[in-house]
Amino acid sequence: MAEAPVRRPTLAVVGATGSVGAVLLQILSQHADIWGEIRLVASPRSAGRKLTLRGEEVEVVALTESVFDGVDVAMFDVPDEVSAQWAPIAAAKGVVVVDNSPAFRMDPDVPLVVPEVNPHAARVRPRGIIANPNCTTLSMIVAIGALHAEFGLRELVASSYQAVSGAGRAGVETLRAQLSLVSGSELGTTPGDLRRAVGDRTGPFPEPVALNVVPWSGTLCEDGWSSEEMKVRGETRKILGLPDLKVAVTCVQVPVVTTHSLTVHARFQSEVTVARAREIIATAPGVVLFDNPAAGEFPTPADVVGTDPTWVGRVRRSLDDPAGLELFVCGDNLRKGAALNTAQIAELVAAELTAM
Amino acid sequence: MAEAPVRRPTLAVVGATGSVGAVLLQILSQHADIWGEIRLVASPRSAGRKLTLRGEEVEVVALTESVFDGVDVAMFDVPDEVSAQWAPIAAAKGVVVVDNSPAFRMDPDVPLVVPEVNPHAARVRPRGIIANPNCTTLSMIVAIGALHAEFGLRELVASSYQAVSGAGRAGVETLRAQLSLVSGSELGTTPGDLRRAVGDRTGPFPEPVALNVVPWSGTLCEDGWSSEEMKVRGETRKILGLPDLKVAVTCVQVPVVTTHSLTVHARFQSEVTVARAREIIATAPGVVLFDNPAAGEFPTPADVVGTDPTWVGRVRRSLDDPAGLELFVCGDNLRKGAALNTAQIAELVAAELTAM
Ligand SMILES: NC(=O)c1ccc[n+]([C@@H]2O[C@H](COP(=O)([O-])OP(=O)(O)OC[C@H]3O[C@@H](n4cnc5c(N)ncnc54)[C@H](OP(=O)(O)O)[C@@H]3O)[C@@H](O)[C@H]2O)c1
Ligand SMILES: NC(=O)c1ccc[n+]([C@@H]2O[C@H](COP(=O)([O-])OP(=O)(O)OC[C@H]3O[C@@H](n4cnc5c(N)ncnc54)[C@H](OP(=O)(O)O)[C@@H]3O)[C@@H](O)[C@H]2O)c1
Repeated sequence: MAEAPVRRPTLAVVGATGSVGAVLLQILSQHADIWGEIRLVASPRSAGRKLTLRGEEVEVVALTESVFDGVDVAMFDVPDEVSAQWAPIAAAKGVVVVDNSPAFRMDPDVPLVVPEVNPHAARVRPRGIIANPNCTTLSMIVAIGALHAEFGLRELVASSYQAVSGAGRAGVETLRAQLSLVSGSELGTTPGDLRRAVGDRTGPFPEPVALNVVPWSGTLCEDGWSSEEMKVRGETRKILGLPDLKVAVTCVQVPVVTTHSLTVHARFQSEVTVARAREIIATAPGVVLFDNPAAGEFPTPADVVGTDPTWVGRVRRSLDDPAGLELFVCGDNLRKGAALNTAQIAELVAAELTAM
Repeated sequence: MAEAPVRRPTLAVVGATGSVGAVLLQILSQHADIWGEIRLVASPRSAGRKLTLRGEEVEVVALTESVFDGVDVAMFDVPDEVSAQWAPIAAAKGVVVVDNSPAFRMDPDVPLVVPEVNPHAARVRPRGIIANPNCTTLSMIVAIGALHAEFGLRELVASSYQAVSGAGRAGVETLRAQLSLVSGSELGTTPGDLRRAVGDRTGPFPEPVALNVVPWSGTLCEDGWSSEEMKVRGETRKILGLPDLKVAVTCVQVPVVTTHSLTVHARFQSEVTVARAREIIATAPGVVLFDNPAAGEFPTPADVVGTDPTWVGRVRRSLDDPAGLELFVCGDNLRKGAALNTAQIAELVAAELTAM
């Protein structure tokens, strides 16, 4: 007897024309094709535009309630307020929403999922919404999760080196415009010269980002913390299931186009060895060990951009703490940091729906 | 009765034509003029060049033993091996040497001095040499020293965002050349594109530094640590007189011309309050508090370059540790990070010699 043909689930990509959307379309064209129809959705501004997907031209449609008719899974990669408004509308129509905004991440009824770390969490979604973590959290969490599973994490101190594409297309355009301004000049050598040259062309950043580093990302929360720092702390605790984990993060923007980097000082429950830590990193799914300084091997954004895994280098045991490890971690903020993790979650859900 | 005229001490600036040398000449022209003759010394390549000092043209002379005849104090800002060879020669002639290389910093018979933190140490110099700390240490130590004096430091976790002029003129030229290459291009968006475009034009850095961050500085020490990281640890312990201080540092190069930044996670012996920490930072000599994110105030290299103090912002109490503080610190690596601290030490010595 022939098997019943499996219905391939219908997918909607909301925000298909954005930075994350563009990478999602690439990934959907490259991964094993499990989807039936894929609808591309954006603002009315983009309606009628044609984008290439799975080797074909697909027309973008404007976001309305009816775009969700017959849709099984929807990925949302749109501004936060658009997600906050529209994700519940789609979910109310029975769509499983995978949302990339911060709107629902800390909601106890919304799972926050990293397929390599807590895939089981995706199955329990009382609101029909699954949240995708922030790109900074995602750039380190797969490696940290693997080490935690072995050694038991007690404390994290992390500092970020964040790429401008974390602030969307506007971030990239701002850096490119500022770079053409500083190239061939002597800027960056006298107090305030960069600020004067850039004027109000700072785009989504509070200060010039070319030839500079900016220790601020997001909005002001309590006691001087930035929203980006609070996200990394809250999300790391939620994903690892460690509500009391000690976390201290400082988030800094750097003039890199794509790929977030972090220095990580991690303290564990028991003594660690570098040999075992390297073994874990080298064998964990989604993680690459790139760590041989004698041969010039350590991850940098220039090597990591465009790739899927979390790259880990500079693995050292803390000199004054046998339970501490130091790492330098890089992850493409548009791939694992956004589009790839979203696609992986959607694929988990599709597998579950197809199996039913 | 008229006072005897005070003899003004004679100074030699060895390495007057370098990056640090250039800033030294500015500082010597701006500070209260306590010096008699000032001799400018460099390699034979520069002999005969004229440099402006105290509003006058001064001819550079080549480094030989006789340039130290009659000299009281000599500042050395030359490659490490030149310091290692020549500082003892000058000291043997009775010159007090203030050396900016790593050659003598960890020698127990050589004091390592930061005038705001341990000025008394400059008086005990069995070898006639006083060492100036590394620029990364200097970019944070004045602020850390002030907080330590009040709260008692137990542990430091720091990550650096180091400017290319820390690698001398070659570092700056390399970044400028790479910037003209990336400006107007789409580089930094596909794996390895930057590395291919830059080729072997990486100058003193192991990887492209434009549109990139490079988690390596110096040479390879034991267990995967870089020499720059080991310097910051050893020097911080020596300057603060805390030989067992827990220190974990990761040093990263960023595409900034001048001014090193650091994120600092500091744990103290007793509970800290942000209010008291801010008071200490605001009143400590050589430190500026610039910390009001609501008004867009936090230090960035673009603001700090060309200025003398250590700038401190993003002052927060660790959320999970009442004895912990988080800071973002910036210091001009050519001023306080090198030339200014050297000049301050030389002025301490001059005051001591003149008082004798
Ligand atoms: N960039 C990252 O690294 C990153 C990482 C993690 C999470 N995220 C999150 O992902 C989301 C998108 O980021 P992005 O960087 O891709 O932004 P982006 O490049 O600015 O793109 C925004 C997308 O949202 C669409 N959009 C805007 N307003 C809309 C509306 N009213 N109705 C329907 N669609 C609308 C845009 O369509 P039009 O082209 O028609 O304007 C575009 O497709 C944000 O929530 C962000 O927080 C970003
Ligand atoms: N840049 C920083 O942020 C920084 C901070 C702290 C410490 N330092 C230390 O300061 C020193 C100088 O750094 P820099 O950045 O100023 O380097 P730089 O720009 O490359 O200048 C090097 C200087 O040394 C002179 N020199 C080279 N070889 C010599 C020789 N055989 N005899 C006499 N003079 C010689 C050069 O003279 P010519 O012009 O004749 O070649 C030039 O004046 C190094 O030890 C470095 O580790 C630098």
